[in-house]
Amino acid sequence: MSESSADLKVEQAQQAALELAQRSEAERNAGLEAIADMIDSNHERILEANKKDVSYGEELLVEGEYSQALVDRLKLSPSKLESISEMVRSVADQEDPLGKTLAARRLDEGLDLYKVAVPIGVIGTVFESRPDALVQIAALGLKSGNAVILKGGSEARHSNHVLFELIEQATADLPNGWVHHIEAREDVTAMLAMDDKIDLLMPRGSSEFVQYIQDNTKIPVLGHTEGLCHVYVDREADLEMAENIAFDAKVQYPAVCNAVETLLVHEAVAADFLPGMVERYEAENVTLRGDDRVREVVDIDPVTDDDWETEYGDLELAIKMVDSLEDARSHITTYGSKHTESIVTDDDQRATRFMQSLDSASVFHNASTRFADGFRYGLGAEVGISTGKIHARGPVGLEGLTTYKYHLEGDGHLVGTYAGEDAKPYLHDDLDAEWDPVE
Amino acid sequence: MSESSADLKVEQAQQAALELAQRSEAERNAGLEAIADMIDSNHERILEANKKDVSYGEELLVEGEYSQALVDRLKLSPSKLESISEMVRSVADQEDPLGKTLAARRLDEGLDLYKVAVPIGVIGTVFESRPDALVQIAALGLKSGNAVILKGGSEARHSNHVLFELIEQATADLPNGWVHHIEAREDVTAMLAMDDKIDLLMPRGSSEFVQYIQDNTKIPVLGHTEGLCHVYVDREADLEMAENIAFDAKVQYPAVCNAVETLLVHEAVAADFLPGMVERYEAENVTLRGDDRVREVVDIDPVTDDDWETEYGDLELAIKMVDSLEDARSHITTYGSKHTESIVTDDDQRATRFMQSLDSASVFHNASTRFADGFRYGLGAEVGISTGKIHARGPVGLEGLTTYKYHLEGDGHLVGTYAGEDAKPYLHDDLDAEWDPVE
Repeated sequence: MSESSADLKVEQAQQAALELAQRSEAERNAGLEAIADMIDSNHERILEANKKDVSYGEELLVEGEYSQALVDRLKLSPSKLESISEMVRSVADQEDPLGKTLAARRLDEGLDLYKVAVPIGVIGTVFESRPDALVQIAALGLKSGNAVILKGGSEARHSNHVLFELIEQATADLPNGWVHHIEAREDVTAMLAMDDKIDLLMPRGSSEFVQYIQDNTKIPVLGHTEGLCHVYVDREADLEMAENIAFDAKVQYPAVCNAVETLLVHEAVAADFLPGMVERYEAENVTLRGDDRVREVVDIDPVTDDDWETEYGDLELAIKMVDSLEDARSHITTYGSKHTESIVTDDDQRATRFMQSLDSASVFHNASTRFADGFRYGLGAEVGISTGKIHARGPVGLEGLTTYKYHLEGDGHLVGTYAGEDAKPYLHDDLDAEWDPVE
Repeated sequence: MSESSADLKVEQAQQAALELAQRSEAERNAGLEAIADMIDSNHERILEANKKDVSYGEELLVEGEYSQALVDRLKLSPSKLESISEMVRSVADQEDPLGKTLAARRLDEGLDLYKVAVPIGVIGTVFESRPDALVQIAALGLKSGNAVILKGGSEARHSNHVLFELIEQATADLPNGWVHHIEAREDVTAMLAMDDKIDLLMPRGSSEFVQYIQDNTKIPVLGHTEGLCHVYVDREADLEMAENIAFDAKVQYPAVCNAVETLLVHEAVAADFLPGMVERYEAENVTLRGDDRVREVVDIDPVTDDDWETEYGDLELAIKMVDSLEDARSHITTYGSKHTESIVTDDDQRATRFMQSLDSASVFHNASTRFADGFRYGLGAEVGISTGKIHARGPVGLEGLTTYKYHLEGDGHLVGTYAGEDAKPYLHDDLDAEWDPVE
């Protein structure tokens, strides 16, 4: 056999993707409901497989190869399984991202152009330990009409194996091969090289992991590596508001990518602002590090240059005093990861300058960086957060798993009519109409 | 010096891009008008430089290294220069692709989210012989607020050098370094490796050339390699309409990517359709090749399997008889390049099946494939045609050189308010408002 098993699976997925793109919203939603039902009625089988993964993980924990956090992420329970099937049903409840007419234009009488939302095609995913990731990615792929290749972490292999079998079984009415599971490491290498067959990669995991994927493939990658977010307390800030925002942005949930990592404070307000702020952070055991000028005002540890580019993901924060809005902007441009930045100021003109001059996916005025999230933005199911600028940026909803196609409806129209000496002019009128499939 | 000249230029361009993004439409348009004026008033200098390129090209033509077509593409004339400055002015006249609010949503009282169109950042371009490409790409980049790195073909080096100098001189009021010109081949290699600094590549040239760029970079590439388009004459076609469309799609301008390369004819209409069609093609000296079943009806040369995957770009056409719409679909999926396909049929249901089941950027019903073009689609200035599915697909207008940013305007809003036991619910109301910069 000259082709690897990954090759064959991806080719089958390409074929299935073409068929899945034609399935109605009702058919795709029925598949999602069936997956949720299948999980609900197979707790015992799933938990049994999961037990094997967990006990193997605990052995490696004892040997010091796995961390407790990793073993915790592996572990499924009846209530966890309930929340997984609930998640699948909530994806079914989302608005259909497909079939919408995004724009329509009358090129001439009887010649109408429609830009129609369609699935991207074949989506490859590689994810680490959590077995719920497998179900979530399959659900998002199915809702958006895409074929999906799943590669889970080997530490969750028994759980993933059973979950995949249940998904396949539940969706037997959908095009055969719309979902695949690969397990071997060499299949991942093969997948990363299939830029002619896989349209998009969605890796899930640590920054290093996503970075590894990005560095080893030419397939477009939807994801983010770093979330190094800033809050800038401007000279014109309402200092009570600034304290609340800087506190929320760090303490409300420090482990996530939209938490603040560096606090920038304008020198004109530093003496008024910092002492109360530091007291509040310290009451929550936030480890603080400041530059020399900050440390003249408050008694905290010194920063090193490394701190400016460290995503702590924990109750740690670096604080810097800046001379001006321009100084803040320049620091963010040098050290930031283009994820999310917030300015606290009562001066709208200064807010505009901050927001327009930064090249970050989300720029906020008087709000916590923690709002940068698909659910909070009202995008529905969150596919991921992108720090890339091509295709999808910032929090990405199901729309990020679609592309578009141009449908042109004519009546024997020829380009020759619109060219040369007696060229007929185009109308190019906006058209308030949807492309209407005839079934 | 540890950095190459390309490195320094690209870093300068990154900085300039941030500043250019804040320049108003009026400032960007003034730059475009100044470029056009500068070209108008420097014909002599440009033509003198161009003469050097052309005479060097003619030497190599004699030595057999260059083709006549390449030398023709190199050549500038006063009327060509007029059409170039006219093109620059027409780009200035296009609607501003920046600053538009693409969507707005009220997350809660006083917490409004805006999705705002912004430039992508730094665009790298590599193009072959035509010196007008340099001006066109610079104009499109400037209109869309992007910094641009230009690398022209060495065969046009003198012309490119002067044109670049004039552009730089004309835009002295814009951020220094918004446009750069690189000339050395090693600078191209360096540029292709700068996936952390260059946001998008726009190569112009032959299929092989674009393919080479795609194969040697991790930067997203906007462009297309092949245009292998199909016209399918269905069992239910109006045969007179089918003949006109198939004729227009091949003969009106055969050298372009949206011309038809393979004609598929349903067996039920082949005997009625083919003789007249072939007569009409042969009157225009189109070289025809058919499969065995076609050749039972008309006397033309046989095809080889290679023909099905050849983009002739010339007055040549392959013809295949198919048993069914499904057979046509399957041929296109196997051999097509996902560019543009057209079905001729009076049966709307069959048209829907054809259009929905194909994964091509443009799918047409009763219209010539030659309509697949940014100007004809009413997209304004054409940036290129994309056969990729991520970011931009099919004919791409200035919008393809933009991305978006989320602006969130709050009043001290904290995520903590919307989390936990007494979580306040989000409103997520659609908002009919534009983000309003305060200047």
